[in-house]
Amino acid sequence: MVTVAEMDLRIVPITRVTAGVVSQATDAVAVEEPLEIRVAYGRDQAHVVRPISITMRTPGHDVELAAGFLFAEGIVTDETDISAVRECGPKLGPSGHRNVVSVTLREGLDLDISRLERHFYTTSSCGVCGKASLDALDVSAGRPALTIRSAISARELLRLPERVRQEQAVFGRTGGIHAAAIFTMAGELLCLREDVGRHNALDKLVGAQLLQGDIPLSDRLLLLSGRASFELLQKAFMAGIAVVAAVGAPSSLAVELAERFGITLIGWLRGERCSIYSHPDRVCHSV
Amino acid sequence: MVTVAEMDLRIVPITRVTAGVVSQATDAVAVEEPLEIRVAYGRDQAHVVRPISITMRTPGHDVELAAGFLFAEGIVTDETDISAVRECGPKLGPSGHRNVVSVTLREGLDLDISRLERHFYTTSSCGVCGKASLDALDVSAGRPALTIRSAISARELLRLPERVRQEQAVFGRTGGIHAAAIFTMAGELLCLREDVGRHNALDKLVGAQLLQGDIPLSDRLLLLSGRASFELLQKAFMAGIAVVAAVGAPSSLAVELAERFGITLIGWLRGERCSIYSHPDRVCHSV
Repeated sequence: MVTVAEMDLRIVPITRVTAGVVSQATDAVAVEEPLEIRVAYGRDQAHVVRPISITMRTPGHDVELAAGFLFAEGIVTDETDISAVRECGPKLGPSGHRNVVSVTLREGLDLDISRLERHFYTTSSCGVCGKASLDALDVSAGRPALTIRSAISARELLRLPERVRQEQAVFGRTGGIHAAAIFTMAGELLCLREDVGRHNALDKLVGAQLLQGDIPLSDRLLLLSGRASFELLQKAFMAGIAVVAAVGAPSSLAVELAERFGITLIGWLRGERCSIYSHPDRVCHSV
Repeated sequence: MVTVAEMDLRIVPITRVTAGVVSQATDAVAVEEPLEIRVAYGRDQAHVVRPISITMRTPGHDVELAAGFLFAEGIVTDETDISAVRECGPKLGPSGHRNVVSVTLREGLDLDISRLERHFYTTSSCGVCGKASLDALDVSAGRPALTIRSAISARELLRLPERVRQEQAVFGRTGGIHAAAIFTMAGELLCLREDVGRHNALDKLVGAQLLQGDIPLSDRLLLLSGRASFELLQKAFMAGIAVVAAVGAPSSLAVELAERFGITLIGWLRGERCSIYSHPDRVCHSV
């Protein structure tokens, strides 16, 4: 394998079958490598360093990915909770990226390991799945529904996927990359992040905003290149994003979450059409 | 929301925007709900019950999902490791499904909790990401590369996606469902499972085979409706599947794993063409 772009895609030899004709060719594939996220915390120079996650991601924007992951897990709430971020481990590949990010929490902020156990229960105290679905999931952490009143015009909304495709020139070649992008309600693209994993793309995007001190993302629209699942909507809600538009289909729980917590959820945003699943008042239809 | 199919999709009201025209309509969305997987283990009636995972899944085939998940995590290796499986928790929704599955391991088989910590490190002993990617990941668990020699004809291969689409009639309506299917090398569809999560679809599929005593899946082909990631290839390798075909793109690490462990990896299986990324000798091109 040869890495051609900075660390984004790799050229591999393939055997191509086209209408019965077999040929040797090459193809570009999106890079996927493990990233370990460590958290350092403690007081008076007595830091504990704890690896808390390994995620399979596309290298690049790894510091943002770590920050966004910690935000989504409720470990940090704004940029002041992070006192230092360091990429570590050996340099890898032609691009010299590293596969470990260590985040030092501000002194006095302890790592609440129980927050991390949402996906990984080691005690028998959990019983969320016996309850009606959304009620049981700790979606809001006590936050109120979003009430932001700003809106985007339907005309601008329909243009957004094309804006993302223009920016995706390199990654677009692989066809194997998810994108997440933040727009203003006027349709201006503010930030775009890409990854083989769609959760990672969104964590990178939110992490970038967090490190800039721009959370909550009021008056912003999130565009997702794929489907809209519960977990993506939950990450958007944590970041205060009131309008989420997906190129693909939403799930039932994504619709339920959006309805209940004041998010305008748009799906099937393609060509000249889209479907609005909740709070349609933030899309204005003036022609 | 109204559930129309057994527990597969839900009809929701939407606002549709089509070429500037706004209308009220309905849409079918794929159901997504949390499933808690519990493991009961121990000796002499002194069972410990431990919740080990919550996954957001489409209800249905939940026992298979639990079995497939435990197999992929290395907790069970064949159907004799499971002495009982029980769906529990209250009945939910019109279909009466339940959101908890409890799996009882055979007496004497302990739950090795360290195996579960692959995605969730709570000790500082982990340092896999500092090494070259594939070497560091415990992909093979000491298993040798697959050496099965059987092959599928290119002509049959190109027909497989259409076979899956025919079976997906109900789910196809939502556009929000991933499918995983097992075929013989003669192109006969043996089993199809679907889910909002692609890992779940594959776990359901492998779990179904495991409960039938059909693991390893030698001489079988796995078809994936989406992209081929490292984790999906790892699950296929665990199940002994030597040919994996994806409708979408593979990632770099999926290609690397397939190359090293003897898996024929096919991507972009669409219409009259496909790309073979590794071990192309299991696709024969006789016309």
